[in-house]
Amino acid sequence: MPFVRIDLMLGKDATYRTTIGDVVYEAMRRTLDVPENDRFQVIAERGASDFIVDRTYMGIERTDDCVVIQITLNEGRDVAKKKAFYKAVADGLHERLKLRREDVFINLVEVKKENWSFGNGEAQYAPQ
Amino acid sequence: MPFVRIDLMLGKDATYRTTIGDVVYEAMRRTLDVPENDRFQVIAERGASDFIVDRTYMGIERTDDCVVIQITLNEGRDVAKKKAFYKAVADGLHERLKLRREDVFINLVEVKKENWSFGNGEAQYAPQ
Amino acid sequence: MPFVRIDLMLGKDATYRTTIGDVVYEAMRRTLDVPENDRFQVIAERGASDFIVDRTYMGIERTDDCVVIQITLNEGRDVAKKKAFYKAVADGLHERLKLRREDVFINLVEVKKENWSFGNGEAQYAPQ
Repeated sequence: MPFVRIDLMLGKDATYRTTIGDVVYEAMRRTLDVPENDRFQVIAERGASDFIVDRTYMGIERTDDCVVIQITLNEGRDVAKKKAFYKAVADGLHERLKLRREDVFINLVEVKKENWSFGNGEAQYAPQ
Repeated sequence: MPFVRIDLMLGKDATYRTTIGDVVYEAMRRTLDVPENDRFQVIAERGASDFIVDRTYMGIERTDDCVVIQITLNEGRDVAKKKAFYKAVADGLHERLKLRREDVFINLVEVKKENWSFGNGEAQYAPQ
Repeated sequence: MPFVRIDLMLGKDATYRTTIGDVVYEAMRRTLDVPENDRFQVIAERGASDFIVDRTYMGIERTDDCVVIQITLNEGRDVAKKKAFYKAVADGLHERLKLRREDVFINLVEVKKENWSFGNGEAQYAPQ
């Protein structure tokens, strides 16, 4: 159910981009109690003038490699789980792609369980 | 006011893509009490490696034709209306485009009435 | 922390698009208490058939120049601040780019403070 939008600057190959998706999915599985195979991700490359991430905000140095990850998911995870997720994504991207941890920007948008249809025109997660 | 983002894999022509928008708009009109002409939609095509929808999650078989529809709208619709909307979209896409109902993924994001400006720098829906 | 997605029709040059981002950032600084350098924006150009904004909804005449601005930000700003922001964006785009104020569409999505990581795998805004 988490629906993930990944934005990054043009210039990385498909394997690199897919690996970002892999890392986000694996981090969700480990830290956010996301079920197996619950993976829905859209990746978009942007030209430099269309991808603006401040280079110093909060004292964090960002580069052209910065990845912006915006995730819509069910409400209710506590702060500890969210923190574990951020760390797992930053660590995973660093390990797998040598991405600097400073270059990982994440935003969560929370919604109600009934706000999803996974196919067939049904609300699979709605209260019965 | 609903603002609709539609993502799908590259390869469908403009008429096909516009018809997706038509179906979503008509379903909103019929099931979500959306006013006439309240239609704001952005459609994005993605390459195969940038559009990842799991092929089996929840026992639903998805294909390359899967369409992801993410809609931001005012909070307050009940579960029955949301269910009617999901069904209307899946039925409409099946009838008009022969899209398999399994290939219709929908997510709603709810916001407050004051969170919209439809032009002129005003908050047309804000409480007076 | 506000994360901004800007969508517009193909055909404006990079300077024009960047100026939209400048105006949105400056309006946030002045009306929404956004800190200096808190600027994270993604801009996407769309073909005409993939960018559907109704031309008359609410009696507002929109053209191909319409700009759709969707912003994810922390919850808690009051209606007066949001109204001031909408006005500042429409006025700024009119002054800087001669954009008609009718062609400025804005939507806010509010989230909790703990829903952001600005880098390093940490939740910089989470309650301690």
